[in-house]
Amino acid sequence: MAEKIPYKIYLNEDEMPKAWYNVRSDMKNKPAPLLNPGTHEPMKPEELSVVFCEELVKQELDDTTAFFPIPEEIRSFYKMYRPSPLVRAYCLEKKLGTPAKIYYKFEGNNTSGSHKLNSAIAQAYYAKKQGLKGVTTETGAGQWGTALSMACSYFDLDCKVFMVKVSYEQKPFRREVMRTYGASVTPSPSMTTEIGKKILEKHPGTTGSLGCAISEAVEVATKSEGYRYVLGSVLNQVLLHQSIIGLETKAALDKYDIKPDMIIGCAGGGSNLGGLISPFMGEKLRGEADYDIVAVEPVSCPSFTRGKFAYDFCDTGMVCPLAKMYTLGSDYIPAPNHAGGLRYHGMSSTLSQLYDDGFMRAVSVPQTEVFKAAEQFARVEGILPAPESSHAIKVAIDEALKCKETGEEKTIVFGLTGTGYFDLVAYEKFHNGEMEDYIPTDEEIAESLSKLPVM
Amino acid sequence: MAEKIPYKIYLNEDEMPKAWYNVRSDMKNKPAPLLNPGTHEPMKPEELSVVFCEELVKQELDDTTAFFPIPEEIRSFYKMYRPSPLVRAYCLEKKLGTPAKIYYKFEGNNTSGSHKLNSAIAQAYYAKKQGLKGVTTETGAGQWGTALSMACSYFDLDCKVFMVKVSYEQKPFRREVMRTYGASVTPSPSMTTEIGKKILEKHPGTTGSLGCAISEAVEVATKSEGYRYVLGSVLNQVLLHQSIIGLETKAALDKYDIKPDMIIGCAGGGSNLGGLISPFMGEKLRGEADYDIVAVEPVSCPSFTRGKFAYDFCDTGMVCPLAKMYTLGSDYIPAPNHAGGLRYHGMSSTLSQLYDDGFMRAVSVPQTEVFKAAEQFARVEGILPAPESSHAIKVAIDEALKCKETGEEKTIVFGLTGTGYFDLVAYEKFHNGEMEDYIPTDEEIAESLSKLPVM
Repeated sequence: MAEKIPYKIYLNEDEMPKAWYNVRSDMKNKPAPLLNPGTHEPMKPEELSVVFCEELVKQELDDTTAFFPIPEEIRSFYKMYRPSPLVRAYCLEKKLGTPAKIYYKFEGNNTSGSHKLNSAIAQAYYAKKQGLKGVTTETGAGQWGTALSMACSYFDLDCKVFMVKVSYEQKPFRREVMRTYGASVTPSPSMTTEIGKKILEKHPGTTGSLGCAISEAVEVATKSEGYRYVLGSVLNQVLLHQSIIGLETKAALDKYDIKPDMIIGCAGGGSNLGGLISPFMGEKLRGEADYDIVAVEPVSCPSFTRGKFAYDFCDTGMVCPLAKMYTLGSDYIPAPNHAGGLRYHGMSSTLSQLYDDGFMRAVSVPQTEVFKAAEQFARVEGILPAPESSHAIKVAIDEALKCKETGEEKTIVFGLTGTGYFDLVAYEKFHNGEMEDYIPTDEEIAESLSKLPVM
Repeated sequence: MAEKIPYKIYLNEDEMPKAWYNVRSDMKNKPAPLLNPGTHEPMKPEELSVVFCEELVKQELDDTTAFFPIPEEIRSFYKMYRPSPLVRAYCLEKKLGTPAKIYYKFEGNNTSGSHKLNSAIAQAYYAKKQGLKGVTTETGAGQWGTALSMACSYFDLDCKVFMVKVSYEQKPFRREVMRTYGASVTPSPSMTTEIGKKILEKHPGTTGSLGCAISEAVEVATKSEGYRYVLGSVLNQVLLHQSIIGLETKAALDKYDIKPDMIIGCAGGGSNLGGLISPFMGEKLRGEADYDIVAVEPVSCPSFTRGKFAYDFCDTGMVCPLAKMYTLGSDYIPAPNHAGGLRYHGMSSTLSQLYDDGFMRAVSVPQTEVFKAAEQFARVEGILPAPESSHAIKVAIDEALKCKETGEEKTIVFGLTGTGYFDLVAYEKFHNGEMEDYIPTDEEIAESLSKLPVM
């Protein structure tokens, strides 16, 4: 094989982006503002600053500045694991016998095992710069908590993680990684917060939920001197930091004069997808290029494909601001689905607006199909993918097989957000034929959507 | 920071070595030959070919050819995860406040999580080329079994892994990774082999040992049509394949005109260490350069530092050829030590000869110190290291701290062989203060050495 394009395209360190790109700056229809849950008025910076770091509040609210310089300290940290490789999936193409050219941006080559570190280090940096003692957060599957622990350890910040109790018990290894990085990890709901006590009183023996863990983390942040709350997805600031994924991808493609036809990413809260597509979406919004941009979500949690574009609560405790987004309702509890990171009831406001305006499309896939694709990919590409990432793999394979039928030589780019080392219980279920698909009924979704806040 | 040398030195694909280097070709005192355990005569190729693939037997016995071209099919596979990065540990240096310059060659960025894949793919390739149906092997900690499963899956070979029963039960995730790659994994001892049945009869309820698993794997290979046995360490052929680690390291250093003073690697059977040091050792043997080459082993299994240089059995079942090596006796059972890959009673014949001839030195370290170093490294370098690799980290840190005292600006290179995602039970014990060090008594070692075969 004497191909011109290498298996892995690595940028040099000096080719790594020096600024994050804010896709909102190119949107005509800006994402709707966060609203105060009590007054339904747009959240003011001073209100948000009680919960979030000041610099991050600025980033959250700024929908006009196109580029935010990446501080040198963050760039130094990025260099430990970035630029990440853009991989040409030669082996997968060969196995599929497709004329399509498949590339994936691999974000799993760091110990947090996912792209989450890109925003964690930025949020930790701004917390440190503000002179804070530490930050609080919640984690479900554990990727975000791990990433934040690493970032806080680097800046000597205290890190308090509320981990959904069922994950805390089922994923002790994730917990140990966080402890290795010096974080304190509390199973949620806990007796350390008012809201935790209330929930435990009402539902003794509950195994917790992401919504409850968020409420506990926010409570501790607002009640502790020198602490703020940080979040790993959904927010505009997170998409901004994650734009580095897309900027690197585009720079690597440009280096070899490659124009992708399709860009595919999995979508939970939107952090990876928003980051990956941002510079391509920018071109599309400015009318400079066209791309087929595809969000992939699980059939069990189909915010885009079956949800409603409306203001909703971001958490179950209803203490966070209201966001306008594609949502299944904050009451929606997805069926047991091992693709933990994609179980969020809502979706980034930015992506929701772009989807509503027709700049991207969405598909939903059942998880047994996702694991089949994951295994197929692992066997030829040598990477054990995270279940979340495998949603994108599934659709990339489907599209490549369509090309095989039509003979089209499409260039397909997808985001491989992370590795599946901590998801082997799910792989085991799949191998043993014990994995099931669950598709919510129309009634279930309607029931949950009926509880949207009245605006 | 405007350093000239990047955080990660990546070679281009076309700079990846095109041939493996055989360090034996430059040795005046060649490693002693493998002996037939019955006759004590050197093993003939036709005897070895019953167990091993033909091409690999040639590589095993050839101590004069300096370079073996790497077949194109293997190079294609290598390109999925190689060249691997040589990382400048800027963050660790800063944390230690040392004038030393620390580099590590990171072999963990592939799903097998270690350098073992370098030889697994070569051995699978030659098995395929010989028209075999499949291969058998044993695995303890699981890294080798995982690597071989990946390699066999790539070449559509059947892969039968005998996994030490205690690991099979304690490391179900490793087992699931192997199953993802289509391997069959049998806990050893098993009722599927004669030797397994015998052992189970004699020791019902035993949790197995590496020695027993080897014997079962060899039995199945020799009794099954179209199968051979493969091994992940100790053998000359394995060191040959692993030379790619050292060749890449040297090429990356040469690119920036860096001359290392010290090269440090962990030593179990010797595969990583032998591979990492090979081109440097070659220069040393040819009198072209001098390097301080250091093998690091656990105090609980000190083959180099407290063993004897003698012919010994490679397995507990005593069915394999005899090898001359530094050994603690094939009867030696290391105390429970989570650095699984370093628990072998013996050591590569090649490295044993080089050590005996004074071309390298060895130190042993207690595992609590190793885990302290691992955590320190993880917190600043962002990689969760395998316990095995952390032995090298420990000594690299010690040496860097010596430089801090003396003011020497030594350049230290060490091998970071893999990641610790599947070793979190050990990390947990460490965090909980439940980890202990064990140093064997002189009597214990003497007792085990008293059973060496009489030559």
